[in-house]
Parts: sequence; structure tokens; C-alpha cells
Amino acid sequence: MIPFNKPYLTGKEAHYLYQAVYSEHLSGNGAFTQKCHHFFEERYGFGKCLLTTSCSDALEMAALLCEVQSGDEVIMPSYTFVSTANAFILRGAKVIFVDSRPDHPGINEEAIEALINKKTKVIVPVHYAGVACDMDKIMALANKYELLVVEDAAQAIDSFYTGKDGVKRPLGSIGHLATFSFHETKNITCGEGGMLVINEERFQARAEIIWEKGTNRSAFFRGEVDKYGWIDVGSSYLPSEISAAFLWAQLENIDVIQQQRTALWKAYYEGLCRWAKESRGQLPVIPDYATNNAHMFYLVCHSPEQRTQLLKHLKENGVQAVFHYLSLHKSAFYREKHDGRILTQSDRYTDCLLRLPMYFELDAMPVISELISKAN
Amino acid sequence: MIPFNKPYLTGKEAHYLYQAVYSEHLSGNGAFTQKCHHFFEERYGFGKCLLTTSCSDALEMAALLCEVQSGDEVIMPSYTFVSTANAFILRGAKVIFVDSRPDHPGINEEAIEALINKKTKVIVPVHYAGVACDMDKIMALANKYELLVVEDAAQAIDSFYTGKDGVKRPLGSIGHLATFSFHETKNITCGEGGMLVINEERFQARAEIIWEKGTNRSAFFRGEVDKYGWIDVGSSYLPSEISAAFLWAQLENIDVIQQQRTALWKAYYEGLCRWAKESRGQLPVIPDYATNNAHMFYLVCHSPEQRTQLLKHLKENGVQAVFHYLSLHKSAFYREKHDGRILTQSDRYTDCLLRLPMYFELDAMPVISELISKAN
Repeated sequence: MIPFNKPYLTGKEAHYLYQAVYSEHLSGNGAFTQKCHHFFEERYGFGKCLLTTSCSDALEMAALLCEVQSGDEVIMPSYTFVSTANAFILRGAKVIFVDSRPDHPGINEEAIEALINKKTKVIVPVHYAGVACDMDKIMALANKYELLVVEDAAQAIDSFYTGKDGVKRPLGSIGHLATFSFHETKNITCGEGGMLVINEERFQARAEIIWEKGTNRSAFFRGEVDKYGWIDVGSSYLPSEISAAFLWAQLENIDVIQQQRTALWKAYYEGLCRWAKESRGQLPVIPDYATNNAHMFYLVCHSPEQRTQLLKHLKENGVQAVFHYLSLHKSAFYREKHDGRILTQSDRYTDCLLRLPMYFELDAMPVISELISKAN
Repeated sequence: MIPFNKPYLTGKEAHYLYQAVYSEHLSGNGAFTQKCHHFFEERYGFGKCLLTTSCSDALEMAALLCEVQSGDEVIMPSYTFVSTANAFILRGAKVIFVDSRPDHPGINEEAIEALINKKTKVIVPVHYAGVACDMDKIMALANKYELLVVEDAAQAIDSFYTGKDGVKRPLGSIGHLATFSFHETKNITCGEGGMLVINEERFQARAEIIWEKGTNRSAFFRGEVDKYGWIDVGSSYLPSEISAAFLWAQLENIDVIQQQRTALWKAYYEGLCRWAKESRGQLPVIPDYATNNAHMFYLVCHSPEQRTQLLKHLKENGVQAVFHYLSLHKSAFYREKHDGRILTQSDRYTDCLLRLPMYFELDAMPVISELISKAN
């Protein structure tokens, strides 16, 4: 059986877990958390970084920092994970769902402007499969209408966007805020985990306070204030040093991990080009302005029936392929709240997208063979 | 130097961490999470248990389950951790702070009824130092006025309350909901962690949905529904299997841990009786209806000056003693929102309470000697 996902261990995880355990600092914001923060800030030039217990929690912090309130509207793709929407709904926002692009499950940048009104506060582009949204277009809208941009970069570690100015920028460094996931299905993992990136300087002090349960504890320990107390809302968003130690072992090996995943992705792409033509299936499209971080390899079938047959065939032959999101605007929770717009592409990816196994230790060849055999 | 706290390792943590890592299930709700849930449900007869990433997160789940909304009032002690209040404020509630008891920092049960009005929705008793609030009185008020009770049992693992009916019940099993902490300062720890207990059956299905980001994923995997999707608000409250594995190693040794802490607590109490008389200090009071889980050993000084001197003396002699909460009704964040009632006891504990070092491997004798030397 070839599973869909298998977490990769670099070999140093247990070593660093021991270090954390015997450091006698197990709660959050210790040495390993600091190492992870610095890693991201230095390697990618991110603004302030704060590890969180999940990408969902990072999105909730973002919603608090944007001061999203009842009556505000937040624009995001319908084809995304529930947490993208929940984080803003928990603050009382109305979510306005946008369709995906015809060539890619990412948000259709051209469809956003018509949905902006006086209530709009935030745009949340989701870099699906680690492939950049067209950030020049989104940031131009944000500037024009004075909106905030939260990049949902859950899948987008070590991926880049090249704007019209020719500068190649890491995803997560462009929006006012950005969120990452280290869930076990991600390229870099600690089981459950996430990170908030605060690029906008005016949010950085408050982000740290919200992260520390609404107290100015961090400023106190840096000697910036005389005493610390409750000064804002907040929660306990910080992960333990146990989680951070595990994550550190992964980050140290990010180049090895990315190299191997990229090789697998290319093997899939090259091995399946002919299959795609013969089966009228669609392989992933990487726009010129985007890079590929090899987070995911997906196919878009020409019909729901083709997907069902392929999933069945692969399963019968020991390969666990899976579909992905269900359009959020059609969910039991939101369909009555949605404004009735038909989101064709989102529904097409809901019905026809299929993800192939993708993990460090995968041998992609048997998967490719099974797909090719089905095409013939 | 004798630190205030030092996390205790049972010796099996690393072993179970390895097991979790090599099980290839690192995200939440795996085998170790299930073991922990069953442990609590069986040993203490709790309703449904759900591990969370912190007690703060468990309190936020409780606030969602109670359907706390803007305009609702929630009653809790002022002498508590900020998360008790934040969780409800994040849902739009107004927090009504109550004074502490003269004999104990727990909520003054007699002061609650006068604060109940039509807007009141929830009472949150905090079992300070693991010592029970008088739950008969609180549950009677909840019944009389149709309120919900969330026990903040962050410090109260393995502690009990004996009601007028003579039945000895574990703390966390009495309110409609209860929350626990496994932060590194607690008797049982995984660095950062918590748990929600759902005793009220009508909340149990929804709790699981909220825990799973607002989806019915768990019911789907049990075969109870045909497909799963977004049906409610929610977040990612579940900790990784790495955290759960660590916690399991601690839970297996709970009796050893509790025995040792209890012995230390008794040594402090007996060693400091004379000091208390001579110094006009107050030792902890355990009411007849409560047990002592030896989470904390504190002294209440007769004046803020006495506390300052004691803290200084202990520090100079290598003992790290610390104060505790600052009355929340007087915080920078809430003083303008508070209704102006003076909460004398809460302020007294803010100014005069001092916590002594308390951890498994502590030798209490040098601490006692330093205190006695100061009394003479």
C-alpha cells in the first residue's frame, strides 16, 4: 500500500526533543521557538514571526489584528480549508466567497474587485498547492480600497512570487500578515503547528501581546516595561518547546526536503504528460510569476466519473489518492448565508481534483504506472 | 538556587515520543490522544474529554458551547489568570468580577447571587491552588437562575469536592463543562496543553465538531454520517500526538507524582506553622469539603511590605518565591469596564500572596529554614 502521506523524519527530531526535555523549559517561547523565529526572519526576510499551535490559530490572530468585527466582509476563495473562513467568522465577519481560476484552484484575482464594497476589510488569498496567487493584482486592490491582505500560506513554505518589478519575493512576505501550517501533511511539520508572520510594523507589538494572552509579558522580560499585566484580548497561541524542537529538526533540513519533493513532483509531471493528453486530464499549471514548492501533486479529471474511477482503480492497486476541498459556499454551514453566485471553477475542483501520494520517501513510479495503465 | 518550578520527567516521555514519531501519525487525535481521553473518563468519571493545545483553548471552546454572545454577562473571580476572562471576552461577553473568600483566594460564593441578572449566562468558579470552590452553592445558583457552570480546573487535577450528600466528586465532573491545564507549571504537564471536559450530554456532539474545525470529520470516521463537511464554527483545538505521547507518560505516573507533591506540601505546612504564628502570616486553608492536590504552597503575608521583604530575603538566599495574579478588575485592560465595586480580598491576595517552590524533586527543608530564620 502506498499511503497518501507519510511524515518524514530527518533523524534529529528525537535528539532535539531530548534537548528540550532536559533544558527544563517545556512551555512556549524558549530557545527552540526563538531559533525557528530567527530562521524564518533571516532566510525569507519575513517581518516578525510567531509560532502558533496551528495555522487556524495564526489565522485567528490575524483576524484579531485586523480588528475584524460584526458586519465586516472578508473576501477569500470558496475552494479552501474551513479554517480560512472560521477564523474570520469567529470575529463576526461575513465571508464573501470568490471562484477559483480556470487554470488553477487559486482565487480568481479578476473576480475580486466587483465584490469590494464599504464593508470589505480583508482579502485572504490562499496559495493553493504552494503556488502563488497573482499578488501584484491583489496588493493593488488592497491599496486602492485600503484593505488588509492576509496571505493564507498554509501550503506555501519556501515558495516565491515574481512581481512586475522583477523582484522574486517569498510567499508570506507580501501581505500585511501571513499564516503557515506545520500540520503533518505539510512539507515541514511538527504534527500540529503553525506560524503567523507580521510584515506590517504597526501590528507587531500588538501581535506579541495577543500571543501572550493579552499581557505585555514579553516586553517585561526584555526590560521595556516596569511590570506586566492584562492590557488587551488574547489567547495562548504559543506551542510548547517540545513542538518547536521537533520543528527545528525539520527546518535544518529544509533544502534536502525541498530537493527531494521537487524531484518527485517532476517525475510525476513528466511521467503523466502523455496520460493527461490521452485521458483529457489536466496537470498542475504553474504561472510564470510563481515557483513550485512541490507541496502537492494533483490532477484535474475531465469529469467526476473519471475521478471516481481513477480513485477506485488506484485504491484497488494499493495507491491511496484523495480528493480535496468541498466548495465552502455550498457547505451545510454556509449555503444559506452565501449570496447565490455560482462558482463554477470551485465546484469543478471540488468534483474533479485528485491528489496523488506525495512524501519524501515515496517511489512515484508505481503510481505513475497505475495511472498510465488506466489510460490505455 | 532553588527554582520556583522544575518540570518532572517520569522517564517514559522520550520512549513514548519515539513511539508517536515512528507510528507515522503525528497530527492530532491518534492513539495517545485516545489513551489520555480514556484515562480521564475512566479514572474520574468525567463526561466526554477532549485534549486541547492549552487551557485557554479549552475555555474558548466552553464559551462557544455556552453560546456566549455580545451582551451576555459571565461571573468569575477577579483573582484568576487572564485566560479565564479572555475566552469569554473574545465572544463579546461582559465579565463581572467577584471578590475572593477571606479564608481562601477562591471565589466568594456568597457574593455571586447579588450579581446575577437577566443578562447572566455563565458562572466560572476557579479552583484556586486545586482547592474546590463550594460547588453545592454554585450549582444551586445555576439551577435557580438557569445558568451554565464552567469549572476552571486548570490547577485542579486529581482533586475532589464532597457535597452535602456526602458524595466525593472529582473537580471537573461537577459543572456542565470543565477545563484543565497541562502547562509546565502544573502537576501533570506536556509543556503547553489542556483539556475540555463536557459533562452535559447535549453539548458533546457539538464539542467534537468545534474541536475538528467545525466539521463532522470524527462522526464520518466512525461511520455515523455518509460524508463530512463544514457544519459549524470551530478551530483546530487538538494537540499533536507528540504532545499527547508526552502527557501519557505523565498520566501513567500520576499516583507517584501526587504522593510526592502531597508529602512536600505537608512538610511545608508542618514546618511553617510556628513561622505563621510568629510572623502573623497565613498558611493555606483547605475547607472540609475540599481535598488538597498539592498543586501549590502559598503564604498570605500580613502586609505587602512583609511580602517584599520575604521575597527579597529568599532571593538573596537562593530561593525563587513568586507572587501570583494581579486583580483583573484593576488591570489596564478592564478597570474602565469594571463597575467600581471594591474587591478587598482579591486585592489583598494580589498584594500579599507568595508562592513557594513546589516540584517533584524539591527539597523543602532549605526553604523552610530560610523562612524560619527570617521570622526570628
